[in-house]
Amino acid sequence: MSINIIKQTAALAKIKFLAQSDLNDMDLVIRERLLTKAQLVQDVTYHIINSGGKRLRPILLILIAKLFGYQEKRHINLAASVEFIHTATLLHDDVVDHSNLRRGKLTANKHWDNKSSILVGDFLFSQSFLLMSEDNDIKVLQILSKAASIIAEGEVRQLASIANLSVNIEDYLQIISAKTAELFAASCQVGSVVANSDPQSQLAMYNFGLNLGIAFQIMDDVLDYMASKVAIGKNIGDDFREAKVTLPIILAYHNSNQQEKEFWQRTICQKNQHDQDFDLALEIFDKYKITAKCLELAEEFTNKAKKCIDIAPNNQIKSSLIELLNFSISRSF
Amino acid sequence: MSINIIKQTAALAKIKFLAQSDLNDMDLVIRERLLTKAQLVQDVTYHIINSGGKRLRPILLILIAKLFGYQEKRHINLAASVEFIHTATLLHDDVVDHSNLRRGKLTANKHWDNKSSILVGDFLFSQSFLLMSEDNDIKVLQILSKAASIIAEGEVRQLASIANLSVNIEDYLQIISAKTAELFAASCQVGSVVANSDPQSQLAMYNFGLNLGIAFQIMDDVLDYMASKVAIGKNIGDDFREAKVTLPIILAYHNSNQQEKEFWQRTICQKNQHDQDFDLALEIFDKYKITAKCLELAEEFTNKAKKCIDIAPNNQIKSSLIELLNFSISRSF
Repeated sequence: MSINIIKQTAALAKIKFLAQSDLNDMDLVIRERLLTKAQLVQDVTYHIINSGGKRLRPILLILIAKLFGYQEKRHINLAASVEFIHTATLLHDDVVDHSNLRRGKLTANKHWDNKSSILVGDFLFSQSFLLMSEDNDIKVLQILSKAASIIAEGEVRQLASIANLSVNIEDYLQIISAKTAELFAASCQVGSVVANSDPQSQLAMYNFGLNLGIAFQIMDDVLDYMASKVAIGKNIGDDFREAKVTLPIILAYHNSNQQEKEFWQRTICQKNQHDQDFDLALEIFDKYKITAKCLELAEEFTNKAKKCIDIAPNNQIKSSLIELLNFSISRSF
Repeated sequence: MSINIIKQTAALAKIKFLAQSDLNDMDLVIRERLLTKAQLVQDVTYHIINSGGKRLRPILLILIAKLFGYQEKRHINLAASVEFIHTATLLHDDVVDHSNLRRGKLTANKHWDNKSSILVGDFLFSQSFLLMSEDNDIKVLQILSKAASIIAEGEVRQLASIANLSVNIEDYLQIISAKTAELFAASCQVGSVVANSDPQSQLAMYNFGLNLGIAFQIMDDVLDYMASKVAIGKNIGDDFREAKVTLPIILAYHNSNQQEKEFWQRTICQKNQHDQDFDLALEIFDKYKITAKCLELAEEFTNKAKKCIDIAPNNQIKSSLIELLNFSISRSF
């Protein structure tokens, strides 16, 4: 596994390197847009934006534009726009989840308060649409506003899935497609739209992002049970404590015997958890090889993503993205 | 005063009547847009949208479009769009303010929980942009996304003004222009844009809405101290308890003697309030005729609004809007 981690880190570093100059330009746009009369906006967003996020969504938008030969500058502001949507979502998610740690730092709702996180999130969301509207392309606006609306619906559906063991794999995939993968998909599609690629390629890039995003979220949900705090910079077990019904629990519950099913009903449906319950959950996961099953499903989606990117011109960006897909399901293992 | 209330109610009823058929069409759009897989969205928004809001913003958008002779249907979806922005703001405001009563009903954050209010607010905000992007006019999108961003900045600045007695009238007017009047302004401007009126008229309609919105918010802030719960359907004294520094407190603090200044510092800056303090605040307001001073300032803005609407064609809508302005500063007095 450790060789995979090294290869994955290298693949991530490579795609970041390929986008770096444009990411720097995007940072200037982000800083400029946060210079408001509201000091709180600057404080909160500085905290979040400088806290070491991977910036996968803007990187994807930038690289897909370049993959299709785009050489102008529209993608810079649009990359800032998707990063703003993502950051707004994080701010609101952390309030909804009562999180206190993200990327190894205190979350904004703990550092300031819930009020600040809600209102600054709204500010970023509105700035995102302002940037898009200034870009002046109704097609891009339609893609991203549809994405924002799908994300919001996914977040609400996720809220309704909490403590609900009747959620099945299909529901789960619908929820993560909406709340996470849609913004990956829209970012990739927008990259291909600004590059003026043909409609078939634009659709393929949408599906590339969607499948990559689903794989990414499955890995994220697995890591919430498996990784150490140092490795992922957030608390492990948050999903368990919040009674979020994600893939590991869905698969484990489906496999469980009667006694284990009662364990899940107590800890998840009734949110009645004792000190040892998280370790017991991990034991059940081990018994039924839940991690391996999650990785298998994630791999199905990275394989689909690989097929989608076939259509793109062969160049260094394409091979780096394929390399990333090859190692993406080994994240932190 | 009571004759004014009757005249004002009549003026409001008249403008609502003039917009009624289009408001009914807008309701169909709103209902259709809320038919999602997320049941919570339907529950929360049904609660809010059917709780008797005045729908001033969509009414203004509809009437200004008609005032300039518009006869097509674009304004229906755009009216729904501004109502969605407004409703999203209400949902988030109620969480931020810890409100429990709005329009005489439990607020959504009390009826459901803060999580639902945050996420359903985000959903409505994103639906608003989806509706706009489907309307397919980049100018409208630019007006409304600029408005959304100004509103969000105003909300953050208002948060920073809490418990802060150094806020002066100028700061206050900037904050309410942003958080409230901007959406009135944008609604009126969009009405004139869909009607394809000349640029000078579009600017005048923006300013008409802005001045009307400022007057409206001043009245709203006065009512938080003066009106009965029955009359305004929310708790009075909420702003005082939340230590919100609105016009009545700014004017009272400016006029206060040393002992009274100390009262404001204790109750507002330190949020150290006892049972009798709200009544004491009202006594200081009486002593310095704060209500009358607030009404005078509100009237300045309704007079400005009247001048702005001069440019519009003379018809029944124009005279009804002027009639509304004539009685708008008597709301519930």
